[in-house]
Amino acid sequence: MAVPGPVSPVVPGSGSLRPLGLDAVTLTGGFWADRQRLNADAFIDHADRWITSMGWLDAFTVAAGGTRTIPLQGKLFTDADVYKLLEGMVWDEARRPDPRRAERIAEITRLIAGAQEDDGYLNTYFGPLGRDQRYTDLSHGHELYCAGHLIQAAVARLRAGIDDDLARTARRLADRICDDFGPDGRDGASDGHPVIEVAMVELYRATGERRYLEQAGRFLEGRGRNQFHRHEIGPEYYLDDLPIRDARVLRGHVVRAMYLTAGAVDYAVETGDADLLGVLEDQWANTWRARTYLTGGMGSRHLGESFGDDYELPPERAYAETCGAVGSIMVAWRLLLATGDAGYADAIERLLYNMIATHLSPDGDRIFYVNRLQQRQPAAPVPDGVAPFRKDTARANWFWVACCPTNVARLLASLSDLVASTDDQGLVVHQFASADIAATSPAGVDFRVALRTDYPWDGRVTLTVAEGSGPLRVRLRVPSWCERATVSVAGETTEAGPGYAEIDREWRPGDVVSLDIPLTPRITTPDPRIDAVRGTVAVERGPLVYCAESLDPRRPLDAVSLVGDEIREVSLEGLGDARVAVMVDAVTTGLPTPNRWPYGTPVTAGQPEPLQLTLVPYYVWSNRGPSTMRVWIPT
Amino acid sequence: MAVPGPVSPVVPGSGSLRPLGLDAVTLTGGFWADRQRLNADAFIDHADRWITSMGWLDAFTVAAGGTRTIPLQGKLFTDADVYKLLEGMVWDEARRPDPRRAERIAEITRLIAGAQEDDGYLNTYFGPLGRDQRYTDLSHGHELYCAGHLIQAAVARLRAGIDDDLARTARRLADRICDDFGPDGRDGASDGHPVIEVAMVELYRATGERRYLEQAGRFLEGRGRNQFHRHEIGPEYYLDDLPIRDARVLRGHVVRAMYLTAGAVDYAVETGDADLLGVLEDQWANTWRARTYLTGGMGSRHLGESFGDDYELPPERAYAETCGAVGSIMVAWRLLLATGDAGYADAIERLLYNMIATHLSPDGDRIFYVNRLQQRQPAAPVPDGVAPFRKDTARANWFWVACCPTNVARLLASLSDLVASTDDQGLVVHQFASADIAATSPAGVDFRVALRTDYPWDGRVTLTVAEGSGPLRVRLRVPSWCERATVSVAGETTEAGPGYAEIDREWRPGDVVSLDIPLTPRITTPDPRIDAVRGTVAVERGPLVYCAESLDPRRPLDAVSLVGDEIREVSLEGLGDARVAVMVDAVTTGLPTPNRWPYGTPVTAGQPEPLQLTLVPYYVWSNRGPSTMRVWIPT
Repeated sequence: MAVPGPVSPVVPGSGSLRPLGLDAVTLTGGFWADRQRLNADAFIDHADRWITSMGWLDAFTVAAGGTRTIPLQGKLFTDADVYKLLEGMVWDEARRPDPRRAERIAEITRLIAGAQEDDGYLNTYFGPLGRDQRYTDLSHGHELYCAGHLIQAAVARLRAGIDDDLARTARRLADRICDDFGPDGRDGASDGHPVIEVAMVELYRATGERRYLEQAGRFLEGRGRNQFHRHEIGPEYYLDDLPIRDARVLRGHVVRAMYLTAGAVDYAVETGDADLLGVLEDQWANTWRARTYLTGGMGSRHLGESFGDDYELPPERAYAETCGAVGSIMVAWRLLLATGDAGYADAIERLLYNMIATHLSPDGDRIFYVNRLQQRQPAAPVPDGVAPFRKDTARANWFWVACCPTNVARLLASLSDLVASTDDQGLVVHQFASADIAATSPAGVDFRVALRTDYPWDGRVTLTVAEGSGPLRVRLRVPSWCERATVSVAGETTEAGPGYAEIDREWRPGDVVSLDIPLTPRITTPDPRIDAVRGTVAVERGPLVYCAESLDPRRPLDAVSLVGDEIREVSLEGLGDARVAVMVDAVTTGLPTPNRWPYGTPVTAGQPEPLQLTLVPYYVWSNRGPSTMRVWIPT
Repeated sequence: MAVPGPVSPVVPGSGSLRPLGLDAVTLTGGFWADRQRLNADAFIDHADRWITSMGWLDAFTVAAGGTRTIPLQGKLFTDADVYKLLEGMVWDEARRPDPRRAERIAEITRLIAGAQEDDGYLNTYFGPLGRDQRYTDLSHGHELYCAGHLIQAAVARLRAGIDDDLARTARRLADRICDDFGPDGRDGASDGHPVIEVAMVELYRATGERRYLEQAGRFLEGRGRNQFHRHEIGPEYYLDDLPIRDARVLRGHVVRAMYLTAGAVDYAVETGDADLLGVLEDQWANTWRARTYLTGGMGSRHLGESFGDDYELPPERAYAETCGAVGSIMVAWRLLLATGDAGYADAIERLLYNMIATHLSPDGDRIFYVNRLQQRQPAAPVPDGVAPFRKDTARANWFWVACCPTNVARLLASLSDLVASTDDQGLVVHQFASADIAATSPAGVDFRVALRTDYPWDGRVTLTVAEGSGPLRVRLRVPSWCERATVSVAGETTEAGPGYAEIDREWRPGDVVSLDIPLTPRITTPDPRIDAVRGTVAVERGPLVYCAESLDPRRPLDAVSLVGDEIREVSLEGLGDARVAVMVDAVTTGLPTPNRWPYGTPVTAGQPEPLQLTLVPYYVWSNRGPSTMRVWIPT
């Protein structure tokens, strides 16, 4: 039995805000609509072709007793990427019906359902037809991780109002897991890679079946007992070093940390556990203030794909995996819904513009995995048709481990959900994107409003009432980096600082409120504790981080320094949809003689030559081919 | 048949310099004699106890068909650490006969020889009684790596003049390998982890058996064909991305790079291949100028224990594994012997004082694996009796992977070999340590000289002729960081800059030459391309790198900056044998408010409070308990 609700990945039972869902918020144009369209028209199909050619779909046929027709490549958790892509297809089809996509969803669902064992167990690597017996490697096997992603795809299907074989297959697997890991099973055990927790809470929300919530609680509370295999970075790799309530900051493997935290927030909300929610808010805050890159990316260490210590944020070896950004958005969105704190929406904006937008090439056929903030030497281009095993490459068509692209596909397909939500008094706009929004006022009046903007290039955002009359409180986010925005409605203009600007009034169709956010480029200085970027600054404009990029390998960015603090906008062409560049005054100096021990008395640099340095949005970097790049520029 | 030669690990057939060996150079006191004694009296036995308790010796009994009595811990290459420790015991016994040690060497030799298969193959992990069939995992199996270390131990035994079961066992294994990997075998294949190459050349030198040299050549020339398993950092992990003659810099796994290069230098020398030697000199130079920490440590990345890009040298996540330093000394010593270039002796000095000396705790029972240059938060102490799986810990009794301690044991046991050598005209002193040295002049006169110094605390080095008369050119190294040393002999004083100061004269017993090296502390500025240490300086005194260390967790080193450039020596007590500290003027400022996004407008720091900062030699850091530390201090 499915519980009705918005067409939304996260539908909490309580909290400060309520999601509107994909059916109520439609992107109509601009930066994010373009990316959602690229996802729908190119990227999902691109991913589908790769998932097919890597043998990841064929694995289900083999698990169902069929014959392998495509050599299997990839690691042991490829099921999860099939499920995540399927989830992306489901959201995309839910927001915009498409018979071809619907047929493909049905086809993949048939493959998956066919591989399910009689007792509900489902995994193509483990099980009787797999290579190992089930539950024999909970540390690294990713069995419950794969299951969690199947459940998330099924929740998407249920939220789209379709209770089909996908939902039935996922529920049978969820029941199997509840039996196997419940009070009469391996109680206390869990999977080395979380995601089953957040999936189980959402399945509870989507079905009303309480045992899923309880099982999520068992998984969450069982964490922190050093139960997994030795790992080179210790039990923190699995977030298994400390009980979830005892930790003060996120640590270990970034994606694991984010998925686990998302599940914990959901669990705290559903059980009304304010203490746990407070702990999780603190963990996020401590992570955001000391373990996050300017781009919103997280993960300072390639070993274990993990967080570093506080303020250990080297730009040159930033890991900042795209999946971590998707996970961060999952957590920040849940905390936003629970608390209504605009800071979480600020975080989501930063992650969207500087991590998610950076992932895809303009044609939607190449992707980053690792998101460094400095490239010293141009990275070798990855040839077409190659899925690299290493992750710190230039954009590639695909990767041997493809967690990131499928994560981005499902996020872009459901993106409009993040734009606005409702609270007890009305409508709250979190992200600036042209969108048609339907929301019901506390008095029960159905409003339709048109949010329009050319953000992030222009700072004007208008909200026009298309339908509906009567009282409604409208709140519009003013980003934290914006000291003073202006809000105009009915000829009256007021100023607003960071947080939500409130307009509480009676509305009539045709009424317009406009928010003006100055997008003057600004110089950003790092906290002095971030040793790796001492003596440098970055440039930002609105939500966008900028970077210097050199396409000339003979002129890398090693000897360039900023001079003064004059920055000016210039128009930008030929770099996809990026329309604004920033010019700064700089100098370039000669470099020290090579073949010299690099430590000693100060090097007498050459005569500084003045230089006009053009900075471009970080998200377009490397789109023009192999380049050197830096976000943090010496002063 | 053993070829006579000096008791020395490296005895090239030609080259600029000739090693004197442990029998000709005896450390008599001071910094390095103390460490050699600690190695002999405490550390070798400590390692022996650990190797026994981890089951690594028992593995030979099991491979010989016996019953396991000690649960096996560690990875699949534990044989190598038995061999390296054995090599350390052999050198130690060679320099100073000791019946107890001789008996232990014989005992371990019996265990090893007992595990050898009838056809000469020997490995406790692979083979009929091991877990896998031989040569089934050349990428990660470390079979030839283990064999190489056995051969090195056997060479030590042969050089000590003892042709026993150890040498016979190693030769039988070497013959097996030549058959299996020779022209009629797996020609072109090699081991993912080099060391067999350098071992084979030295076995050729020690036995005169040319097939060993030829086999080394096959292994070396076979490299660069991407023949191994996929690795997260690509084929450069194995140095298999490029043929050895085509690479311009060392890359990938540091220890593999150094072992391979050591073998390649030996091979180039024995085959008279000047082109190859030139390539290897360039590779070293490019590595030393752009991929080396101030301590001489190498390895900027934990993932793959590998080099980073040029100038990627983050102090906070320096890997700088101790084994890499041992490997660097192996390479630098070989290049020094081949070329006579003092720069290689400078490199060895830096590595000895700042990497090797740092390894051991003062009691010789705890060791570092990773050698960071910055510690932000005090590391948790490792309890007694624990061998950590992770490597970035505080000093521990032992590690799950114990390549470093056994490497240091064999280096310290054979250390006197590095102090001096001979050339066509006389004696060359490379390292300053109190030592009695026997050398024969070109005219065939046997000289005995006494080298005496209190280096690195005092810069005076004297060399007194005890026996021998006649012409002899004596050369004494003037370190590269020393702009002007003075040399006095027979009342005459001259100045000398970096390189070798030459004294070419007739000597009589009682003649003294003294070298005075000013050890004034100096401020060291990094190359501006090393982004991670921009805006900081380090302090050095003589060969020692200094560091700031705070034992007070409430006063970490996050907010300390150097002021001015006045530095002064103060005496140091209570920190082992470290006798000189350095004081600098500094300020400490308040830190930014916590819970704040760490990027934005510059933080207004608190009122700077003046502070006298005491810097201690890097090698003693963490000896006083958990601490924060930094080598590079903001200015």
